[in-house]
Amino acid sequence: MIELLDSTLRDGAQAAGIAFSLRDKLGIIETLDRLGVGIIEAGNPFSNPKDAALYREAVRLPLAHARLSAFGMTRRPGSRTAEDANLQALLAAETPVVSLVGKASRAQVQGVLMASLQENLDMISESVAFLAARGREVVFDAEHFFDACREDEDYALRCLMAARDAGAAVLCLCDTRGGCLPQEIARGVRMVREALPGVRVGIHAHDDCGLAVAVSLEAVQAGAVHLQGTLLGFGERCGNANLAVCIADLAMKLNCPVLPPQGLRSLTGACRKVAEIANIRLPSSMAYVGGSAFAHKGGMHIDGVLKDPAYFEHIDPAAVGNSRRLLASEMAGRALVLDRLGERFPELGKDSPQVIAITRQVKERESLGCQYEDAEASLELIIQRALGRVREYFTLQEFKIITDRSLEGESPSKAVAVLKVAVGGKSQLWAAEGQGPVHAMDLALRGALETFYPALADMRLLDYKVRVIDSASATAARVRVLIQSGDGASIWNTVGASADIIEASWQALVDSIVFKLMQDEAKTGE
Amino acid sequence: MIELLDSTLRDGAQAAGIAFSLRDKLGIIETLDRLGVGIIEAGNPFSNPKDAALYREAVRLPLAHARLSAFGMTRRPGSRTAEDANLQALLAAETPVVSLVGKASRAQVQGVLMASLQENLDMISESVAFLAARGREVVFDAEHFFDACREDEDYALRCLMAARDAGAAVLCLCDTRGGCLPQEIARGVRMVREALPGVRVGIHAHDDCGLAVAVSLEAVQAGAVHLQGTLLGFGERCGNANLAVCIADLAMKLNCPVLPPQGLRSLTGACRKVAEIANIRLPSSMAYVGGSAFAHKGGMHIDGVLKDPAYFEHIDPAAVGNSRRLLASEMAGRALVLDRLGERFPELGKDSPQVIAITRQVKERESLGCQYEDAEASLELIIQRALGRVREYFTLQEFKIITDRSLEGESPSKAVAVLKVAVGGKSQLWAAEGQGPVHAMDLALRGALETFYPALADMRLLDYKVRVIDSASATAARVRVLIQSGDGASIWNTVGASADIIEASWQALVDSIVFKLMQDEAKTGE
Repeated sequence: MIELLDSTLRDGAQAAGIAFSLRDKLGIIETLDRLGVGIIEAGNPFSNPKDAALYREAVRLPLAHARLSAFGMTRRPGSRTAEDANLQALLAAETPVVSLVGKASRAQVQGVLMASLQENLDMISESVAFLAARGREVVFDAEHFFDACREDEDYALRCLMAARDAGAAVLCLCDTRGGCLPQEIARGVRMVREALPGVRVGIHAHDDCGLAVAVSLEAVQAGAVHLQGTLLGFGERCGNANLAVCIADLAMKLNCPVLPPQGLRSLTGACRKVAEIANIRLPSSMAYVGGSAFAHKGGMHIDGVLKDPAYFEHIDPAAVGNSRRLLASEMAGRALVLDRLGERFPELGKDSPQVIAITRQVKERESLGCQYEDAEASLELIIQRALGRVREYFTLQEFKIITDRSLEGESPSKAVAVLKVAVGGKSQLWAAEGQGPVHAMDLALRGALETFYPALADMRLLDYKVRVIDSASATAARVRVLIQSGDGASIWNTVGASADIIEASWQALVDSIVFKLMQDEAKTGE
Repeated sequence: MIELLDSTLRDGAQAAGIAFSLRDKLGIIETLDRLGVGIIEAGNPFSNPKDAALYREAVRLPLAHARLSAFGMTRRPGSRTAEDANLQALLAAETPVVSLVGKASRAQVQGVLMASLQENLDMISESVAFLAARGREVVFDAEHFFDACREDEDYALRCLMAARDAGAAVLCLCDTRGGCLPQEIARGVRMVREALPGVRVGIHAHDDCGLAVAVSLEAVQAGAVHLQGTLLGFGERCGNANLAVCIADLAMKLNCPVLPPQGLRSLTGACRKVAEIANIRLPSSMAYVGGSAFAHKGGMHIDGVLKDPAYFEHIDPAAVGNSRRLLASEMAGRALVLDRLGERFPELGKDSPQVIAITRQVKERESLGCQYEDAEASLELIIQRALGRVREYFTLQEFKIITDRSLEGESPSKAVAVLKVAVGGKSQLWAAEGQGPVHAMDLALRGALETFYPALADMRLLDYKVRVIDSASATAARVRVLIQSGDGASIWNTVGASADIIEASWQALVDSIVFKLMQDEAKTGE
């Protein structure tokens, strides 16, 4: 089976506009592991102190499929291997795998490293041996390999040999500038396999010619057994090989499955999860996993697809966890609702009035910008309300939030929220000052309600996300707010959407509190 | 030379989220013509009455390079050619070229057309002959050609022969479902060239496997001389072959220029123009023409590129009309600031107090959550302020924003902003109501300033993004706001960060306005 190495957290983090928090990174590692990726390259512990902190947390994660890899360079020219700070940082990361990048290009050794050709070979050989002797599986990334072959193929091969002889497990050939065509890549892979029989060859491609996926497939067909990329194609410049597309092409087109059984069916879900964490919109046209990958708009196409989906779909979308969309007549979400109702309400069918009402409301809220895939508690509330099972825990009577700033703009702005709620005939007015209007509102609402529901003191907001839905409407754009809450016993997610961030936050916050109260009541009732 | 056919206005308009007005379409035709595209397929005059109106306007445009093509299907089964409404509409469009799509798949003829195999051959033959006899150059698009070959290669070839014998100028092989690998495409092209020597073969690829560019290049290398796609890859599902990337790959990698001299250098400009007309943001990672295609962020990469751009760039960005960007990321250093200062301030060196001050300020703002890689205007303002070159255009004296909601939560919340600014000793108070507090503030600030600076009326906010930086702090989390603004002549990006979304938006908004005023002054000053 082809070994996958995902570098979303290392090469992917080099992309313009991408920045991950520690928490984001741990979430991505868990998502990639669940998908079934074999190696996760999570960062460069030497050049980035934040990555060193990440490894301390990440090595404790209980991973089912993946092994972690720390990324770094061969030792510096002239330094002693055992004292090289970079190699020390790689060891300290305590990962089972280490991705070690070294130069394979004569011109770069002389022009960038300012080292002799022999010194570079020593650097490779000693660095690999140092890590291998300490139990690390070393993936040697031969930087600029294909360009290097054009300059001096013999030297490029000697670099690979140095790594192999020192104990590298994989020799990964990098098209670092992304400028090579698939034919050249295939030729390079075959050349290495002939010159160094028995080695495990890898490929690392970039998309500067719009060919990273094609290059990766060609390399695999030429005998590469280790494939590097980033799940959504994030990466420096035009990005790295899009691993999701490579995975699907290999499995569906070349009969070369690279994920554990059932992994392919969770591909779209994993991609959406990573996009959500990265706070980017998954490009809707992304092959296999994009929201439009199986969308049909043209009348002729819709006709054809209704007669037989295979007329305009090259695969069954469910095979990669995606689904068909007919843009002229959006499909109903009743299946989703029925799925949620599950075994709890066996008496409800596709045509029950409650199911129809719930579906209608979900679609209405979705058209306003909500998304329930990541907000199961809000969906649950819609369902329970339609079934008449949610009582009125409180009523908002009024709120006012005042943000002001004065003194010639020297002091930052200040927000105060004043809020009045009623519970069972009794009113409570509460005021709070916060860091911004949303924070002030959150504090005021919880302050007012805790007098009635002391258990709310256990509840914390764990995560708060804002996504601009239609960014071209500028400051009048609709936003979607996702809130994750927890109370020690469980964690739940809620959503709100509006052109006003305060309104959207309010919706998600109220759902979060009502869900907590409802859960507590259900527990007491049992 | 390879003939290019752009279908942005026909196949591209089938993409989810794309809709063009008549004016948009004329603008795209002019842009493609200036770039040097040979054939522009502008619509389907039969199925879309708006497209018929477009052709009436478009045929009058003075085009330098391009010829227009109308797209439609072969006559219907059982209808008489001379009376077929679709063929009549194609004639009425009065284009020199006609793109005629016909079936080549045995299963589709029988299953979708419900016609006999012979009837389909007659439909092709008679339709092509009808148009050719009336002076049209016919491009015959053989739908599902590669899938058809798997079913019945002999029948697929007979369809092509029917078109050729009736006078088609080009036989274009379509991978309609986008499911074929490059090898299969190359084999198909070669097979057709051997079976039908002397014909001009074309290729029409879709990106459902992330391989449309690779497929197109393979087809050209196998002898195709006509290449269909859409400039930015717009199209049904995952899109069509991205013509911009194909053009650059062919010219730069296969030594096969497809544009008139100087055309390649206007490629990036043409792509940005089409994106602007389509009202989409050009994906920044798009090969060759994206805003990040030559962006460098990693410290190692920036070092390398500063030594020699060829270390991390496979071509000179200027060759395709793009430019290099060094991203001011967390790894920002003085070298980067110096590079920004560029040739404008030759007197400044790495140790100049201004350079040190700018670097310190960039890092300080970054630690608060700003990011300058996508906000070059905010970075420019830091630089210009450190150099004492930004005058005080206005002073904020006070603002107050009130959001309230009452009536038992039935009505949505409402936001009003009241704001006072001073310009040269004169104060202006302005109030505005908006969809949420940020929108209200935006309207109030612009309202107040337009009385002093009427040119601000030309400025529009094009894009507004919010990113929660540390989402685990929940509603007290810091947010980063990115604003993109434009005034017709140029586009610029600014940033702000704070735990208060109003404060963060305020910073980005003020930077955006000050940048506009400073630019205008610089122009007038020259």
